[in-house]
Amino acid sequence: MEEVRIGIIGIGNMGTGHATYLARGEVPGARLTAVCDTNPDRLAWARANLGEGVARFEHPEALMDSGLVDGVMIAVPHYDHPPLAIAALRRGLHVLIEKPAGVYTKQVREMNRVAAESGKVFGIMFNQRTNPLYQKLRDLIQSGELGELKRTIWIITNWYRSQSYYDSGGWRATWAGEGGGVLANQDPHQLDLWQWTLGQLPKRVRAFCGFGKWHDIEVEDDVTAYVEYENGATGVFITSTGEAPGTNRFELSGDRGKIVIEDGKLTFWRLRVPERQFNREYRGGFGQPECWKCEIPIQGTETGHKGITANWVSAILHGTPLLAPGEEGIRALELANAMHLSAWTDDWVEIPVDEDLYYHHLQERIRNSKYKKPAGPARTLDIERSF
Amino acid sequence: MEEVRIGIIGIGNMGTGHATYLARGEVPGARLTAVCDTNPDRLAWARANLGEGVARFEHPEALMDSGLVDGVMIAVPHYDHPPLAIAALRRGLHVLIEKPAGVYTKQVREMNRVAAESGKVFGIMFNQRTNPLYQKLRDLIQSGELGELKRTIWIITNWYRSQSYYDSGGWRATWAGEGGGVLANQDPHQLDLWQWTLGQLPKRVRAFCGFGKWHDIEVEDDVTAYVEYENGATGVFITSTGEAPGTNRFELSGDRGKIVIEDGKLTFWRLRVPERQFNREYRGGFGQPECWKCEIPIQGTETGHKGITANWVSAILHGTPLLAPGEEGIRALELANAMHLSAWTDDWVEIPVDEDLYYHHLQERIRNSKYKKPAGPARTLDIERSF
Repeated sequence: MEEVRIGIIGIGNMGTGHATYLARGEVPGARLTAVCDTNPDRLAWARANLGEGVARFEHPEALMDSGLVDGVMIAVPHYDHPPLAIAALRRGLHVLIEKPAGVYTKQVREMNRVAAESGKVFGIMFNQRTNPLYQKLRDLIQSGELGELKRTIWIITNWYRSQSYYDSGGWRATWAGEGGGVLANQDPHQLDLWQWTLGQLPKRVRAFCGFGKWHDIEVEDDVTAYVEYENGATGVFITSTGEAPGTNRFELSGDRGKIVIEDGKLTFWRLRVPERQFNREYRGGFGQPECWKCEIPIQGTETGHKGITANWVSAILHGTPLLAPGEEGIRALELANAMHLSAWTDDWVEIPVDEDLYYHHLQERIRNSKYKKPAGPARTLDIERSF
Repeated sequence: MEEVRIGIIGIGNMGTGHATYLARGEVPGARLTAVCDTNPDRLAWARANLGEGVARFEHPEALMDSGLVDGVMIAVPHYDHPPLAIAALRRGLHVLIEKPAGVYTKQVREMNRVAAESGKVFGIMFNQRTNPLYQKLRDLIQSGELGELKRTIWIITNWYRSQSYYDSGGWRATWAGEGGGVLANQDPHQLDLWQWTLGQLPKRVRAFCGFGKWHDIEVEDDVTAYVEYENGATGVFITSTGEAPGTNRFELSGDRGKIVIEDGKLTFWRLRVPERQFNREYRGGFGQPECWKCEIPIQGTETGHKGITANWVSAILHGTPLLAPGEEGIRALELANAMHLSAWTDDWVEIPVDEDLYYHHLQERIRNSKYKKPAGPARTLDIERSF
């Protein structure tokens, strides 16, 4: 194959962005050949802006079966990521899904199983993995520079949303329509980076969620989660859509020092001697290990959505390793599900989450949800406005 | 009265500091007339450095009954703050105790009752209340500049201590000798500033403690606590003696913006329109309130221990209001006790803490403590090395 013919399912906010850079030919080896949306306005937009050379479909299966595409990008509401990905993979198509991987792990595990059997290239749009800040952080952790992990604290409260944002779509911030709030819509990137940079998930979670705390919505818009890792390290994740201006600050402590990412900078306070060694050997009472504040160079640029798409295309054409394999999407979702479940049960939740229990609790909330799904397939292609 | 004659009970680390500036005449209206310690070396030090004009006692009651003092400063291990304060107050002496107020609230409540009945001036050495940074923070909160509270996050992990510190005294970091770890010894100032600047305690606490996590000790050296306030605001307090270099960063969010104190600076991100009002009135979907980053001038200097002592002396002589009334010491202790109890019971703890339940749990740990109290009154005057 010399060129990957791509269809985009869902040309709302995200899908439109993907369609635009693909139509401009900005991803080498990729050609946009088809789009799909149930909203006639979006198809009219496609006709006017992408030209007649890009086929238009109302139904995703029709796009998949058209023979016009080698791979699909799926940019529809969260619940529909797994069923559409499964449908495409079963048809022998490569798949790149938007985040989150889905709403509950039971559903996503099935998607991952089908993907593994398909042998197709399956990616997920964790575009923040292209940010060199987090790549450098991952490097410092994985290479051992930070030393054995002691603590992580991510304050990610700069996801401010007003009531008018939530009122802009009836499905938004409902259990039935979106399957969650700030954890499902705004935080998937941070939840992914949290586990991806560390290379591990915590083993248990105790979380505290405010549901409709700052807005007239039924899902969570304020979360504080405490986690414990296998080696005894602990972590905290604090997030909200109800604070302005909010904070995005990720701090990590390890045996060899401390790293803080804030305001687009990474700073490493490096201990000359690892703390555990100092603790064993020092005899002086008060005192602490010598510490150097290091400015770490950050090279490269964040290639974002386009970078993830290009990587997926390159994986299809040349076997390039994926930066964000689709199968890894379940890990951020596992964290979000654990936080919900811990708040719902007011108790600890072990990871992996008991997926049947989570599903049961979620269904209860869907039954009582304010959002009533429209009949027919239209819902599938509601536009996706998350980032 | 034109001059307050002061006796210091316990001339270990802290008491020696107090004796030194008093002996130099650095506190107007105060005269050091007596000191007390069970350690002959410390009394020899007193003789050599304070001169024969300062009487020396082995027993605190002898000092109190000597007729040489109008007030006493108590700088002995934590458990003995309340009984010695009670003994002095009952003798009609003014009292200034070192922090923490005691080890368990049951004991401290009795001290507060006696103090109220005594009519004497009762202060506590919360010297960080003299820090203009926290005074300004308190001003911004109490005057309404920050708006209704939404969240507090205090990361106070720069209390690094090595094993050799803990090994320097057999009573140190034991349930029987000190009654706690980082919460009892290092954090009382921050626990006090947390409640003092806000003007409130949370209503419930869920805490996670590591006991002897980083050191060979039996008490907590690592704590993450989540709290909820009456109005629904939440908070997190993270502390440790096992991390280097650690962090001291206090962040607060309110309806009118965000304040961060870090690196000796206070920054206020002020919203032009309160967030709750913006949330109600804005119609534009994405968007957030206009925010101004404000540099807040910090005036005055931190007068520290000497400032608290001078304030206590001035209260005795002139009725000046106390910056740190002794009765308020129970509030920081309430927080520390709640964190212990929540970790011990793996459950929520309401504030005020069930003081009998706390006492019961503490006694259990004292019975199993590695520290065996020396016989006789000597223990009372073990030197106090905390700050």
